[in-house]
Amino acid sequence: MQFNKVLDDVKIYEAGKPIELVVREYGVDAKDIIKLASNENPYGTSPKVTKKVQEIAKNMFMYPDDSMFELKEALANKFKVESSNIIMGSGSDQILEFAIHAKCDKNSKLLMSNVTFAMYEIYGKQTGATIIRTEDDEHNLDQFRKLYKEHKPDMVFLCLPNNPLGECLDTKDVYEFLEEIDEKTLVVVDGAYHEYAAFKDEKKKIVVDELISKFPNVIYLGTFSKAYALGGMRVGYGIAKKEIIQNLYKLRPPFNITTLSLAAAVEALKDEEFVVDCIRKNFEQMKRYEEYAKTKGFSFIESYTNFIAIKFDKMYNSSEVAQNLLQEGIIVRDLTSYKVNAIRITIGSDEQNTKVLKVLDEVLKKLK
Amino acid sequence: MQFNKVLDDVKIYEAGKPIELVVREYGVDAKDIIKLASNENPYGTSPKVTKKVQEIAKNMFMYPDDSMFELKEALANKFKVESSNIIMGSGSDQILEFAIHAKCDKNSKLLMSNVTFAMYEIYGKQTGATIIRTEDDEHNLDQFRKLYKEHKPDMVFLCLPNNPLGECLDTKDVYEFLEEIDEKTLVVVDGAYHEYAAFKDEKKKIVVDELISKFPNVIYLGTFSKAYALGGMRVGYGIAKKEIIQNLYKLRPPFNITTLSLAAAVEALKDEEFVVDCIRKNFEQMKRYEEYAKTKGFSFIESYTNFIAIKFDKMYNSSEVAQNLLQEGIIVRDLTSYKVNAIRITIGSDEQNTKVLKVLDEVLKKLK
Repeated sequence: MQFNKVLDDVKIYEAGKPIELVVREYGVDAKDIIKLASNENPYGTSPKVTKKVQEIAKNMFMYPDDSMFELKEALANKFKVESSNIIMGSGSDQILEFAIHAKCDKNSKLLMSNVTFAMYEIYGKQTGATIIRTEDDEHNLDQFRKLYKEHKPDMVFLCLPNNPLGECLDTKDVYEFLEEIDEKTLVVVDGAYHEYAAFKDEKKKIVVDELISKFPNVIYLGTFSKAYALGGMRVGYGIAKKEIIQNLYKLRPPFNITTLSLAAAVEALKDEEFVVDCIRKNFEQMKRYEEYAKTKGFSFIESYTNFIAIKFDKMYNSSEVAQNLLQEGIIVRDLTSYKVNAIRITIGSDEQNTKVLKVLDEVLKKLK
Repeated sequence: MQFNKVLDDVKIYEAGKPIELVVREYGVDAKDIIKLASNENPYGTSPKVTKKVQEIAKNMFMYPDDSMFELKEALANKFKVESSNIIMGSGSDQILEFAIHAKCDKNSKLLMSNVTFAMYEIYGKQTGATIIRTEDDEHNLDQFRKLYKEHKPDMVFLCLPNNPLGECLDTKDVYEFLEEIDEKTLVVVDGAYHEYAAFKDEKKKIVVDELISKFPNVIYLGTFSKAYALGGMRVGYGIAKKEIIQNLYKLRPPFNITTLSLAAAVEALKDEEFVVDCIRKNFEQMKRYEEYAKTKGFSFIESYTNFIAIKFDKMYNSSEVAQNLLQEGIIVRDLTSYKVNAIRITIGSDEQNTKVLKVLDEVLKKLK
């Protein structure tokens, strides 16, 4: 049977290995596995959110409120925008899908950093669009500028901070760049990890209502999967001017957020204290990895996220390191598929990091 | 900003009004509202499923197993197929999206019954495809045959049983029809309500492994939203030969089923007794609506689902009836948007139906 030709060139996203798979494949006991591969919040779901979901679990038979009234109101309030500036997605991923599918076809061009979130390319290729990447792995706005002028892309992607590397542009520089972009070009400012960057460094902080009022061609993406500790519930959002949101809405399937996910997200927004506490601990713990990398002579990218990318340069092969960690029940992300000889480790809890650093050290000694 | 031209012609799906909206708009107390508009299971979620989800609610911070190993194994076992014959979606809706987007573009044609599930057209129009409908509202295979020969559509949709009308073709007739369809044409057999039809009448029963082995161009869709009472959790599936599934997989976003939804669906499959009990009660209660329609002289379509479409012919205006019911806190689906002067009522619980029939009678007397 013939399917659309564009699919021939689409590759499938490779998710971080789930614990269940490591149990099945390596026979490691589930309770001994440490998964630091998908940038989940290691402090777990806020107990208040868990309690709320337990209370309403019996409502699973009921479709969610498809207008998402309560959650959109809460977000509108948080970001000082209108509900009509917001579209909800099954993760911010789905907003990428809406935006790219609404804007692109096989004649389109997408501009992004050389190493950045894999789904930009995957959704792009689903439309048959051409992917244009900077030479540098990390965001380099001069290279973005040059390629922008050369190719006049339909969409530009800024991942602030960047997954899977962790760096983050200064907001001032982002604004200067956005001034030079034509209004016809849709710019995605992907803030999936933005809460971390804004906490660590005021210069990275993006004020969303200011962003979308200054730049009517920008859509800001946020998620509940990271700092809000709801990765399993698939709730993300896009914020932009109404005209953009209305067009994206045409691609939104009904009921794209589950009944329990809506309630969990509303509750999570009420517990900002939990979020700030998680972020604070994240950066405290991150220092341990930075110290370790320094003692070993590995370079690492200063991270504004809840993960750190440690580069092995010519000293080790990242796939080998990741594979050896896996056999010990530690799941990290090998960045070989991004053509970077590095592993990306989610910053775990104190206890997790102690074990990971110990096992990593053993593995590296073994591979020496 | 310019978006894809095809979006100009896309209309947005109108979901059944949620209880929250009726509370907000009509000031009716939430506990007094009866929602029989979205064909949810009125007997609620199986207590075993609720208990399971409460137990694992604390895992919401973790991404779901993106391979969906356990759920796919359970479904493969139930339907006597391989895991590789299955793709999971956020509702069977999302499988429609994958199939239509994988197969169609602006040169494509989709053939369907005149009144059938609205999303076939909506996803079709997202690709710019042309929609071809039979003259009859209910599925008429002779008309399907004629239009098939005339237009050679890329996709054919059979909704068995049909939402929003309720009728269901005999499997024998479906098989005869499928014999005449070219293998290049992808046929969707939408079994969202199939558990009901198969229970009521053996002649309607589709054996999925037989269907897909006889017809390599067919994809069968099923859902946990109806008989399995998990409408709010967004879990559906497509079953087809591997080649079709692999192509649809290219459009599947990662983590498209939530962590709690996966567990809920696995648990729901273990409690088939609950499902059968709900279906049995459904058809017992449906008789009350049939009796009522008969006494009033309304025609209705014999239903193989968990809803009934009552036609008012020239006696009443269905929008007026639905609006008046709404003011009394009873939400049903007006079929005016389908150009049918009828209301679709989900068969509720004994207590719900008693109230609905009483209020409906009062409303009709008032509108007389």
